[in-house]
Amino acid sequence: MAKMRGYAMLGIGKVGWIEKDIPDCGPMDAICKPLAIAPCTSDVHTVWEGALGDRDDMLLGHEASAEVVEVGKLVKDFKPGDKVIVPAITPDWNSLEAQAGYATHSHGMLGGWKFSNFKDGVFAEYFHVNDADGNLAHLPEEISVEDATMLSDMVPTGFHGCELADIQFGDKVLVVGIGPVGLMAVAGAALKGAARIYAVGTRPKCIEVAKAYGADEFISYKDGSIAEQILDKTKGIGVDRVVIAGGNVDTMIDAVKAVKPGGKIGNVNYYGKGDYIRVPRIEWGSGMAHKQIVGGLMPGGRLRMEKLGALVAAGKVDVSKMLTHHYEGWDAVEEALNLMREKPDDLIKPVVVL
Amino acid sequence: MAKMRGYAMLGIGKVGWIEKDIPDCGPMDAICKPLAIAPCTSDVHTVWEGALGDRDDMLLGHEASAEVVEVGKLVKDFKPGDKVIVPAITPDWNSLEAQAGYATHSHGMLGGWKFSNFKDGVFAEYFHVNDADGNLAHLPEEISVEDATMLSDMVPTGFHGCELADIQFGDKVLVVGIGPVGLMAVAGAALKGAARIYAVGTRPKCIEVAKAYGADEFISYKDGSIAEQILDKTKGIGVDRVVIAGGNVDTMIDAVKAVKPGGKIGNVNYYGKGDYIRVPRIEWGSGMAHKQIVGGLMPGGRLRMEKLGALVAAGKVDVSKMLTHHYEGWDAVEEALNLMREKPDDLIKPVVVL
Amino acid sequence: MAKMRGYAMLGIGKVGWIEKDIPDCGPMDAICKPLAIAPCTSDVHTVWEGALGDRDDMLLGHEASAEVVEVGKLVKDFKPGDKVIVPAITPDWNSLEAQAGYATHSHGMLGGWKFSNFKDGVFAEYFHVNDADGNLAHLPEEISVEDATMLSDMVPTGFHGCELADIQFGDKVLVVGIGPVGLMAVAGAALKGAARIYAVGTRPKCIEVAKAYGADEFISYKDGSIAEQILDKTKGIGVDRVVIAGGNVDTMIDAVKAVKPGGKIGNVNYYGKGDYIRVPRIEWGSGMAHKQIVGGLMPGGRLRMEKLGALVAAGKVDVSKMLTHHYEGWDAVEEALNLMREKPDDLIKPVVVL
Amino acid sequence: MAKMRGYAMLGIGKVGWIEKDIPDCGPMDAICKPLAIAPCTSDVHTVWEGALGDRDDMLLGHEASAEVVEVGKLVKDFKPGDKVIVPAITPDWNSLEAQAGYATHSHGMLGGWKFSNFKDGVFAEYFHVNDADGNLAHLPEEISVEDATMLSDMVPTGFHGCELADIQFGDKVLVVGIGPVGLMAVAGAALKGAARIYAVGTRPKCIEVAKAYGADEFISYKDGSIAEQILDKTKGIGVDRVVIAGGNVDTMIDAVKAVKPGGKIGNVNYYGKGDYIRVPRIEWGSGMAHKQIVGGLMPGGRLRMEKLGALVAAGKVDVSKMLTHHYEGWDAVEEALNLMREKPDDLIKPVVVL
Repeated sequence: MAKMRGYAMLGIGKVGWIEKDIPDCGPMDAICKPLAIAPCTSDVHTVWEGALGDRDDMLLGHEASAEVVEVGKLVKDFKPGDKVIVPAITPDWNSLEAQAGYATHSHGMLGGWKFSNFKDGVFAEYFHVNDADGNLAHLPEEISVEDATMLSDMVPTGFHGCELADIQFGDKVLVVGIGPVGLMAVAGAALKGAARIYAVGTRPKCIEVAKAYGADEFISYKDGSIAEQILDKTKGIGVDRVVIAGGNVDTMIDAVKAVKPGGKIGNVNYYGKGDYIRVPRIEWGSGMAHKQIVGGLMPGGRLRMEKLGALVAAGKVDVSKMLTHHYEGWDAVEEALNLMREKPDDLIKPVVVL
Repeated sequence: MAKMRGYAMLGIGKVGWIEKDIPDCGPMDAICKPLAIAPCTSDVHTVWEGALGDRDDMLLGHEASAEVVEVGKLVKDFKPGDKVIVPAITPDWNSLEAQAGYATHSHGMLGGWKFSNFKDGVFAEYFHVNDADGNLAHLPEEISVEDATMLSDMVPTGFHGCELADIQFGDKVLVVGIGPVGLMAVAGAALKGAARIYAVGTRPKCIEVAKAYGADEFISYKDGSIAEQILDKTKGIGVDRVVIAGGNVDTMIDAVKAVKPGGKIGNVNYYGKGDYIRVPRIEWGSGMAHKQIVGGLMPGGRLRMEKLGALVAAGKVDVSKMLTHHYEGWDAVEEALNLMREKPDDLIKPVVVL
Repeated sequence: MAKMRGYAMLGIGKVGWIEKDIPDCGPMDAICKPLAIAPCTSDVHTVWEGALGDRDDMLLGHEASAEVVEVGKLVKDFKPGDKVIVPAITPDWNSLEAQAGYATHSHGMLGGWKFSNFKDGVFAEYFHVNDADGNLAHLPEEISVEDATMLSDMVPTGFHGCELADIQFGDKVLVVGIGPVGLMAVAGAALKGAARIYAVGTRPKCIEVAKAYGADEFISYKDGSIAEQILDKTKGIGVDRVVIAGGNVDTMIDAVKAVKPGGKIGNVNYYGKGDYIRVPRIEWGSGMAHKQIVGGLMPGGRLRMEKLGALVAAGKVDVSKMLTHHYEGWDAVEEALNLMREKPDDLIKPVVVL
Repeated sequence: MAKMRGYAMLGIGKVGWIEKDIPDCGPMDAICKPLAIAPCTSDVHTVWEGALGDRDDMLLGHEASAEVVEVGKLVKDFKPGDKVIVPAITPDWNSLEAQAGYATHSHGMLGGWKFSNFKDGVFAEYFHVNDADGNLAHLPEEISVEDATMLSDMVPTGFHGCELADIQFGDKVLVVGIGPVGLMAVAGAALKGAARIYAVGTRPKCIEVAKAYGADEFISYKDGSIAEQILDKTKGIGVDRVVIAGGNVDTMIDAVKAVKPGGKIGNVNYYGKGDYIRVPRIEWGSGMAHKQIVGGLMPGGRLRMEKLGALVAAGKVDVSKMLTHHYEGWDAVEEALNLMREKPDDLIKPVVVL
């Protein structure tokens, strides 16, 4: 069986290049080779915090644009040579969960997240995509392979936060976090017709880009409680909606305090530690304030990639503002990943073109 | 100014009969005299636990059927002599919150709850109803004055739990608590097409009535974790929906563990103490399981009373099963209230006909 | 290749037994043999009205319970010998339409309807099911093979009408038609908490069963305009919701006139002829009355069968009331189909056990 | 009683200045004097087509910004001297329809539309506003009195079309009509995250402004069927959503043909004549295509004005692009109205500052 190289988690805290068999292609599947890849903060959590538990020689990465090299015999809409957008989440579309509208949890909670979780990721010469017709999308000509990597996870995750928060025309929205997911939440909130977007964050580069995406006002943890700052700015009434795209298990306390009765909180932050997310009883109306709380893994799959891809292709979302560091060639993968780990001031996202 | 008698909270832990002025009737309002009243567990919380803070000579009660004795000059649809259903929640319908779909929070969180909270309640010879056209409903002939008291709070609260949980055809539903609100949540779940209703509770009288309302299976706290029992019964998958109509701030932990990804939890329980309601991080998918949590005060107002009243009038919900203790005359109010405080085994709800 | 017998449409207006190859089983598919089958009015439309256009030797039927005889190698949850519920609609779950929430239109309008439309139906010794894991459901022990045939189409179609009409607690609902689909719409409306159900129909047997399913009042075309009768009964206000489960292209005129502003009309009637469904301008508020109109093919697939099957298994919907005519053996298929064509007074549905 | 002057419909086809009593102010109401007014196409329909039936000396106009000159004694949030946005639709907020979520139909279909329909309009020295707290909104400093007139009707109507069509991220949207309402539908569609907006219209001035609001491509009736052009442009698949903001009763035929199964059509066009809006049977899937159709009068009231006003105040919607003709003083009202009747090529909307 033919071999390939890939960049792997060797164990908690350990990474390196390894050699593996090129994956098999099932009848509905595709084998792809990446054209560009981007490391994600969750790769960092996976490796250095062991967020998913220990993993042994698991290839990393879930953000990539790619070229199809092989397809299964039941695949109809893709063929070798096609350039594609690859979602981080590749559901099993005939699962009961998908039929219930939650494909992202196919065959179990978060079950649609396969890359660098249940199977090898995309930082490899070749990677496997289950259900090619259901999960890949043709890359529009207008989108560069670099920009396309942002469609794997950053765009759909940030935008999903806005969907979960159910933003309406004229809403006041609080976005917590202006890392790349938070930035896409800001862009999504603007694109859903928010009237005023309050963003929580302090890094100057992120603030600059958040402004360009539509944030109106910035709030810093350093100036005290986020909730109090929001209540000050809204005459004690609070915001209509909150998107949580950063922070920790205590961020929910601020979110609940900052949102008005009947408001909605959409979470797309991954909480890596802590036993409980806590909801403050009094500000939650002792259980009766109609402050809705929901958090969800981004929906993946082909339709999602096509629709969000169309927004990027049309220039209605300019993801290139997030790509602060450009690299070329497989050798740069290690440096790009380290950059995500170190988070220098001028970093939003690195991308590696292959 | 004419005087009237009423049964009041004199201070935390103290109750008694007092004399007060008959309330004034504004141009949109009505003055009513009760035909039947029912005490509520929240009256008990208010008086003996000081759940709303201290109150000085505040007339108690928010569950009543009544007769209109006076209406303001802008009132169009009611006149003295009309028999009416009176909702516990009487919103200000032109408030911004009502326009946003959350009348129950008019002019502030829980602001629609006025009786025995912001103003005198219904345990009085006369009581005041704001916005008579917007908040009263004509009592259908088919409904007795006793049964009508259950429409003030028990029916709309229990049914709202089912709305918040968004129960669909064929769902498996967990209802926590089978006091009167929980019983109405069971009835509501059955009436929304649940396929299997698991109810948490142990009192034999409540279990008997819950079965009659549609509960299929019972779970006891005494047999261990509710969540584990549910997961056992559902092969590890969990229920589609949870309605919380009892318990304490830790009930949410079980609810989140017991519901499947993409499931919904509707809370109508009033949490009287504890700083935080806690959401278990792992079972909430580290923030990404799409397990929606919302809790809300019952919507009040006229339309709600008319629609739920129509269900009772048509015999599609038989509230009389809950009325375990019948009294007559003002003198019985004290005993009825004490009964709610003591909760003897055979009690679900007492009612006093006047 | 092995042969089998089946009952086929030979051409418009012509039916008969033919011999065909036993269908092939793809890697995700199953081959089943029917345990019981039921003919549907749409089989009659297909054959004698040519509603789907001409068809040459197409096996008829889309209502069946069955036993699995073969499965593809990618099928995980079914094996030969399993007894199953078979939905009339078997979508391609990875299609873009399914990902958008409309699996029933997979790969094109009504594309989920494959049996006796795009491929051979279930009136055959063997039939093919695409995507077995996604489309079959295990038959619960509590459901007879006869009753299970009603889950293929009648239950999900009638219930879907209630979902499209979005029936809420306490609604007044008009159900047009009390054939088997209309009867299931009545049952569904009751099970969604309608306070009053007006049903349009005149056949005594259907009226008797409709009452048992929860219809409160009956309206006859013979007594004049349906809309006028409804407006009379509702003091000129109209109903909250309409489910159309019968009639012709002019039924919509009555539906729009009978529903109040902000009301919703759900159609599950198949309109076999006429160029236009017409919406009366004035009663539709000159375009501005918020009277929502939507019609839809039943959603199919496994989850749907499991959830509705659970309602039947629990005895919460008793479909046996509809099975007025019982037959045994393949020879009875012709008579059963003719019965649907002739519609004698005492017929609701025939079923044939094999 | 003091008198005032106003511009009135004297009868069908007849207009002129008349003198009337200054209206009375009820306890919840306000009397306002206009600061700027704009005529609407519907004023033209009302007068010259008799669209609402005959009217005798009814003051015209429903688009205005204003200054409060008197308030009723129950009014809390407004006082004489306050500058306000005035919605064209001023519902009765405690009506059953408002409680059901359809305030715009309070006390009957379209009942929230009072100005120049059931009572005198705003083309007068003074006009009456029912329920001032519920229906007026404070004019933000950032909005000119001219721009504010566009918030009365054009912005909320166009945006409501987008809400009815339920536009989602990445949708392809067809907007029929690029008069002022259609332009606001284009702006609303862009602000809801449409990926591609097809707009139907031909006037160069309107096309220019539609492009600025986010239209991507234009379609002309003159080039043949709109539906065919859309199907050509979308490879036969159709658009996700349609907003109808122009045309006549036959526009719906194109809309249904142009939208994909599972798509939604939101209508905000006022259909002035024709007995029926027609839905093409085949393309509506013979009743089963899940092509949802709903049309609705804009929601009015204070919250709506505040939220949409916030979008305008923040510069996220620049309504000034629509104000092609500026006038000053009462004398110009007649000319402005005539302009709406004549629709010269360079006209979108005239506004008169007073």
